[in-house]
Amino acid sequence: MRLKLTIAYDGRPYHGWQSQPGGNTVQDHLHQALLAIAKQPVPIQGSGRTDTGVHALGQTAHFDAPPALTMNPCNWMPALNTKLPATIRVMRCEEAPPEFHARFSATGKTYHYDICTEPVLPPLRAGLAWHLPQALDPAALTEILARFCGPHDFHAFAAYRGNETPDTSHHRTILRADATALTDGWRLTFSGDGFLYKMVRMLTGAAVKVAQGRAYPDDLAALLDQSPGLPLGKCNHCAPADGLYLQQVHYPANLR
Amino acid sequence: MRLKLTIAYDGRPYHGWQSQPGGNTVQDHLHQALLAIAKQPVPIQGSGRTDTGVHALGQTAHFDAPPALTMNPCNWMPALNTKLPATIRVMRCEEAPPEFHARFSATGKTYHYDICTEPVLPPLRAGLAWHLPQALDPAALTEILARFCGPHDFHAFAAYRGNETPDTSHHRTILRADATALTDGWRLTFSGDGFLYKMVRMLTGAAVKVAQGRAYPDDLAALLDQSPGLPLGKCNHCAPADGLYLQQVHYPANLR
Repeated sequence: MRLKLTIAYDGRPYHGWQSQPGGNTVQDHLHQALLAIAKQPVPIQGSGRTDTGVHALGQTAHFDAPPALTMNPCNWMPALNTKLPATIRVMRCEEAPPEFHARFSATGKTYHYDICTEPVLPPLRAGLAWHLPQALDPAALTEILARFCGPHDFHAFAAYRGNETPDTSHHRTILRADATALTDGWRLTFSGDGFLYKMVRMLTGAAVKVAQGRAYPDDLAALLDQSPGLPLGKCNHCAPADGLYLQQVHYPANLR
Repeated sequence: MRLKLTIAYDGRPYHGWQSQPGGNTVQDHLHQALLAIAKQPVPIQGSGRTDTGVHALGQTAHFDAPPALTMNPCNWMPALNTKLPATIRVMRCEEAPPEFHARFSATGKTYHYDICTEPVLPPLRAGLAWHLPQALDPAALTEILARFCGPHDFHAFAAYRGNETPDTSHHRTILRADATALTDGWRLTFSGDGFLYKMVRMLTGAAVKVAQGRAYPDDLAALLDQSPGLPLGKCNHCAPADGLYLQQVHYPANLR
């Protein structure tokens, strides 16, 4: 039986999602919890990586329950949560069709990015928001975010991950990019059919430069859709991991 | 020059407010920060203790700036925050009259206590709320909290601290005790002229028992104002430290 998990985590204590030799990643903790329950290694596939310090409210993953284990799907959630640290929680566990794949079935993702503009970053926001103790211009913020919407080549807003080939597409469609006021600053929300490595943090970094009056919207929007073959202009503003939250992974209705 | 600090902290990493030989208390961190700036020990007096794991949004303290140090009061806040861990922050620093005393000038305190009633405690609420995944009856909650209001002998709702004498008064006046809905549960707010050791946590524990339908309001209200000389009935419900926040310390207008 294939099971779909919806997972939330505080990114501060972990070296990101992806399993690695040093351990202490979210995936490593899930593998350990599954091993403790199933008494055998059970591979778990996430919707994608999150970096060190990035948080998740709705990361998704799937695994196949070992056939010998006749466990009701609704018992997996409490069983896993008992084995996991309190800063990683399975928020939902449901049976999924056998063709469901946490990564390849996903049709899009929503991230948000929190910015605290208070003079002092409150202790309970430490590591959970980017501290920018200066006013951001809401009109400029709205303008530059609107420019990012739509289908674009986002190559300038992607960090190099090492697995690119000349055929790697940097074309993505952003369906929503906007800013809403928080009591202590701003929340930027980005929805799209996919995001390149560090793309949300680079879009946020660029938007902040504009909202601080330190860059022109036109200059940053000009980094979109650059002609192939010419030297690539890159966005060199990358927001820290602290404020980034993977909010939701989207799937087609029949696989939801 | 006497300076008044308003301090916020995440209680999770610290062994409470009060300095102790093992260190790693909030007061110890403030002493270290002051020592680094003043190059001499500067005693700091808080409004009162908070226990291990208890949070503060508006703890207060005072210290006397060494006369040799000609530092503008507005420079103390950034100087201290540079030396403090991110989970302890001086939110305000202001000159106070020489007779101001963080503890003895206080006329009251406000605490709040957060309860999360969701089936799963979200990772970002771990250690910040009491997880009670069952419905609480709002009417019962309101009723029992109202019974706690007013001047009462709260001896039954105090833990023994070891420094009591036969003359120790357990008489306090609660001016506000109510529950407001949060998106994930309830926030109980208590204001009063003072609180005994663990009193807010015992009042919260008692209120929860009633709101769960596991105790009668009359039985718990009967623990208030017990006659001296008779064996003392005690409240044996104490909420964990996780959900407790020292919100504000109150001072007379001329010392504010």
